[in-house]
Amino acid sequence: MIIVLKPETPPEVTQELLDRIAEKGLTPLHMPGSERVVLGALGDERVLAELHLESHPMVESVKPVLAPYKLVSRELHPHDTIVRIGKIAIGGGAFRVIAGPCAVETEEQTRNTARIVKEAGASALRGGAYKPRTSPYGFAGHGPEGLKILREVGDEFGLPVVTEVMEIADLNIVAEYADCLQIGARNMSNFALLRAVGKVDKPVLLKRGMAAKIEELLLAAEYLLAAGNEQVVLCERGIRTFETATRNTLDLNAVPYIKQKTHLPVVVDPSHGTGMRDLVIPMSLAAAACGADGLMVEVHENPAVALSDGAQSLYPEGFRELMTALAPVVHAVGRELA
Amino acid sequence: MIIVLKPETPPEVTQELLDRIAEKGLTPLHMPGSERVVLGALGDERVLAELHLESHPMVESVKPVLAPYKLVSRELHPHDTIVRIGKIAIGGGAFRVIAGPCAVETEEQTRNTARIVKEAGASALRGGAYKPRTSPYGFAGHGPEGLKILREVGDEFGLPVVTEVMEIADLNIVAEYADCLQIGARNMSNFALLRAVGKVDKPVLLKRGMAAKIEELLLAAEYLLAAGNEQVVLCERGIRTFETATRNTLDLNAVPYIKQKTHLPVVVDPSHGTGMRDLVIPMSLAAAACGADGLMVEVHENPAVALSDGAQSLYPEGFRELMTALAPVVHAVGRELA
Amino acid sequence: MIIVLKPETPPEVTQELLDRIAEKGLTPLHMPGSERVVLGALGDERVLAELHLESHPMVESVKPVLAPYKLVSRELHPHDTIVRIGKIAIGGGAFRVIAGPCAVETEEQTRNTARIVKEAGASALRGGAYKPRTSPYGFAGHGPEGLKILREVGDEFGLPVVTEVMEIADLNIVAEYADCLQIGARNMSNFALLRAVGKVDKPVLLKRGMAAKIEELLLAAEYLLAAGNEQVVLCERGIRTFETATRNTLDLNAVPYIKQKTHLPVVVDPSHGTGMRDLVIPMSLAAAACGADGLMVEVHENPAVALSDGAQSLYPEGFRELMTALAPVVHAVGRELA
Amino acid sequence: MIIVLKPETPPEVTQELLDRIAEKGLTPLHMPGSERVVLGALGDERVLAELHLESHPMVESVKPVLAPYKLVSRELHPHDTIVRIGKIAIGGGAFRVIAGPCAVETEEQTRNTARIVKEAGASALRGGAYKPRTSPYGFAGHGPEGLKILREVGDEFGLPVVTEVMEIADLNIVAEYADCLQIGARNMSNFALLRAVGKVDKPVLLKRGMAAKIEELLLAAEYLLAAGNEQVVLCERGIRTFETATRNTLDLNAVPYIKQKTHLPVVVDPSHGTGMRDLVIPMSLAAAACGADGLMVEVHENPAVALSDGAQSLYPEGFRELMTALAPVVHAVGRELA
Repeated sequence: MIIVLKPETPPEVTQELLDRIAEKGLTPLHMPGSERVVLGALGDERVLAELHLESHPMVESVKPVLAPYKLVSRELHPHDTIVRIGKIAIGGGAFRVIAGPCAVETEEQTRNTARIVKEAGASALRGGAYKPRTSPYGFAGHGPEGLKILREVGDEFGLPVVTEVMEIADLNIVAEYADCLQIGARNMSNFALLRAVGKVDKPVLLKRGMAAKIEELLLAAEYLLAAGNEQVVLCERGIRTFETATRNTLDLNAVPYIKQKTHLPVVVDPSHGTGMRDLVIPMSLAAAACGADGLMVEVHENPAVALSDGAQSLYPEGFRELMTALAPVVHAVGRELA
Repeated sequence: MIIVLKPETPPEVTQELLDRIAEKGLTPLHMPGSERVVLGALGDERVLAELHLESHPMVESVKPVLAPYKLVSRELHPHDTIVRIGKIAIGGGAFRVIAGPCAVETEEQTRNTARIVKEAGASALRGGAYKPRTSPYGFAGHGPEGLKILREVGDEFGLPVVTEVMEIADLNIVAEYADCLQIGARNMSNFALLRAVGKVDKPVLLKRGMAAKIEELLLAAEYLLAAGNEQVVLCERGIRTFETATRNTLDLNAVPYIKQKTHLPVVVDPSHGTGMRDLVIPMSLAAAACGADGLMVEVHENPAVALSDGAQSLYPEGFRELMTALAPVVHAVGRELA
Repeated sequence: MIIVLKPETPPEVTQELLDRIAEKGLTPLHMPGSERVVLGALGDERVLAELHLESHPMVESVKPVLAPYKLVSRELHPHDTIVRIGKIAIGGGAFRVIAGPCAVETEEQTRNTARIVKEAGASALRGGAYKPRTSPYGFAGHGPEGLKILREVGDEFGLPVVTEVMEIADLNIVAEYADCLQIGARNMSNFALLRAVGKVDKPVLLKRGMAAKIEELLLAAEYLLAAGNEQVVLCERGIRTFETATRNTLDLNAVPYIKQKTHLPVVVDPSHGTGMRDLVIPMSLAAAACGADGLMVEVHENPAVALSDGAQSLYPEGFRELMTALAPVVHAVGRELA
Repeated sequence: MIIVLKPETPPEVTQELLDRIAEKGLTPLHMPGSERVVLGALGDERVLAELHLESHPMVESVKPVLAPYKLVSRELHPHDTIVRIGKIAIGGGAFRVIAGPCAVETEEQTRNTARIVKEAGASALRGGAYKPRTSPYGFAGHGPEGLKILREVGDEFGLPVVTEVMEIADLNIVAEYADCLQIGARNMSNFALLRAVGKVDKPVLLKRGMAAKIEELLLAAEYLLAAGNEQVVLCERGIRTFETATRNTLDLNAVPYIKQKTHLPVVVDPSHGTGMRDLVIPMSLAAAACGADGLMVEVHENPAVALSDGAQSLYPEGFRELMTALAPVVHAVGRELA
């Protein structure tokens, strides 16, 4: 950690800060320059965080040298983690497509959509029983009833199911029915939920918050690993920017960046990442090309009557087109569509 | 609601859409232009939302005419709502300062800080017993122990207390000790929490999420009002932008804009809104000048050793300076510092 | 165009506005709803823009129905435009790689880099003789001397050259030496420069500004076409967002979106779009996968000593790797790397 | 400057980098930690920038210790600069209001508006003769004719005039007629224009670009000072963020931040900063409260028929209201409205 002092810092304050660094068991360094005094602190910066040096009135800035996360870091854990969702594996070579409706609306709609995605080659089924909605007047999902439908339909087609858990009170029931617990973008910084989900023995799909820096996504994952759950898939789903032509700005830069920093697998959600049906196929191909381990895609048997996110859901025909177009791209980057 | 169709839309689809609008009890309008057909639907747009017209493959865009919130809207409720927190009122003329430490660290620190803010003229005491932290390794608050200290110290100095509730499981205990429940920026879209807090008979201070549009803040408040709780104070606390010189970009435009759209009072948090101690006083004055109903400010008896947010906490001397500077500005805009 | 009036609008104002719409030769529409009066104006919205209805005190909002650009729109010009830069074509099937150093530093560096990119399969040579620099103390390019080197080296290897023109005063000399004029991100809204370049008989590569919405990029292109130059290549090069892990956020959503809206070809600059050498290859593949017509990549014979943008420039070995990895992805989406 | 090396950096590379630092006349520092080697370079960092250490493949990150600007810095020039525009002074205690129409439309409109703002207490007249327009079909100003009207009307009412210069070719004529040259937000990074304006003996009002960090605004000002022009007023006018309720997000944090970093005066443009007439008065008061040296406000004799920016222009009555409301706030912060 590098600590830059204000120009007017008196020598006794400098000494006091050096002493505090040393007390924490770190090696203090004193670098007096012509315009600023710079201090260094070598060792575990997480210990140093307790000193809250940025609060000191004579400290101009504090620059960390090491990443603030540890368990998710590739430095300590160089090999790719493979996450098992039911019988499928995410990470480690195969490229996986998780597909299904935004929300479980009816048993029939879920079954029809599951059949379509299964036949076209999807590996897992998604579908929301609990839906976060910006407006209190929107359709918020069928809850337990939705979970049961999802489980039944998943078993019928041999597809493991991924579904969102929105609050701790629902954790047990969601974990009972789902093969993978999704934490939505709006809950990425719901630390109580992260801690609770971290204690459950189910894989987790953690979506990036729409205002979350990549480092914050990795720290949210660190909550899960620190609580004991190492089966975590990260999901890039678009961030909020000034651009209004698309619903979100899909940050594909994040994919190779995250792969470099962490051993956890990464999937991309081109449905929320674009908000526009017509962009889902090209952005899915882009996600595969830049190294993602899979996709999470919204498909509906008839998007024109979908209760939520219809504008970004693929038609059955569109999903088949996606899978056909995806195979050669996945292959071109040395992977297999499984 | 205005519905713009794609150029190639066949007449029978246009008719189908007009019929669906009429079936919902709205008045359909057909406006055939030279380059686009535009449809209108007059009436309660919330009903129309159920049609999900934006999902239709022939619909190019949907433009709402009315705001998506209702209970928080000033159109239906033109007079300012006054929110009572303990014995003080927020909204309706007086300008209120809620001050205290970021976190309740010790009884002594809380008491000392409370004495300082009380003597300088604060109306209420803030302090966190449950702290959301980006890193799982940060200090997360003392929980129930912190609540007790806060209550005791608040009573000692006659200051009502405002504190954050982070999860539904803590709601009862927080409501037992606090005079006002704070919903933090990271939880503004935690809809389960909003619904639960909406059922509690305590005023709520709702902070804007760091990626939340003003409309989304108003919809989050709508969750609270729809659940039955009308005692809601909104809080602008800075949004996330590309600017890195400050921790957040304090969006003061939001203050007069929100006052125009809703009857709920608005306070400003210049501590999180800037992240820099030196900017807290000028931005507090700015908040008062543009029409805010009060402030929420972090003060610590000794920020240099604070366990969290020390860099943005005022020293006791700074807080006294703020209160001295604030009075004439509040007076200049026709209010009283109470 | 749809005009939403404020609730309190008196009937005579409504009538006045309808009359003004009719006077411009458009068809006015009156839609009185229960909560708002909505007006419509059917016809050429560009004419209507002259009315400045959004300025009227009784107008709540104005919602355009048509895109504000015309000449660049695919609606009026459905077929892909092919832009010829020297002997190569951009758009229309082939995938092109424009590569070279950020800046022309010396003749030797330019020649060595040109040899490397030519041998690896690049179609054109890029290199800056005039460099926009955030700091007045940075290296700003060699000017005319740089142009001469670029031309000479381009001819030697049979590579057409693309280089930036920063001001109108340099336009003649840049046009004399270059095969394609680049307008940089910082000049995308330099309308005087756009108008001047629009009158030159040379193809233009127009980069998206770092805060420009896609619609604004298309309007900037409209300036060029309106001035008579139809040979325009658009370039997505990353936008400015809150994410600081990467230099910019490469907005690949923009590629298929732009292809849908305009007939002009689009290339991607993964060097500026990421700012990190390690991300250039994966993001180049992503660009190819989502439908871009080519790439603009920074390569340096030795980035460790580059005078600008070294951190994002590929090493020769990296560029060869890119070209090898690119071919199968380009092929997978039905194009050829030419 | 602090240089963090990658974990695998071999000792000979470390030594090479230390040698390169020493060769530039700076003091090199070697700080070997357990997880990273950190290097320091003490002295003038602007010299070090020439080394482009961030390009080196073994360098993980480079963290500057000093600000990249020099002449605009308050460290080297602690006293406030006072800028003289005609007979008025900006900076140094008085609070100044520059007001007038967005564009000079007719002589009569300009004269009427000038009379209104003069009578209400404005210090200077603004008005555009050259207008940057997003669309090539918008009204782009009357050019030289507009300049003449502005000059004449300014002289008639004893108001110095501020007007925008958009390109170098117009610099002489604008400088002939104007008392202060405005550089618009879209040209803040037009470095050729900055260099040219820096050589003219007229004060400059430099607007922040809509995607410009504060540091970049200060570097743009550094261009002007480095070229010889020290009479520079900075202008905060809103930045582009995800919020769409307002045209821009007025970043008032920037005002006290800039005042801390530089000796140059700062004014605020609440018209562009909000884009909404109803927000102009409250945000003007906020600007005064947080320490701005003045305002730049759009006023039109009849905004409902303005050729540009009507939605954000004040009516005459609104401007008088602003001036009345402003006086006590300016006074409350210890200044005088002059």
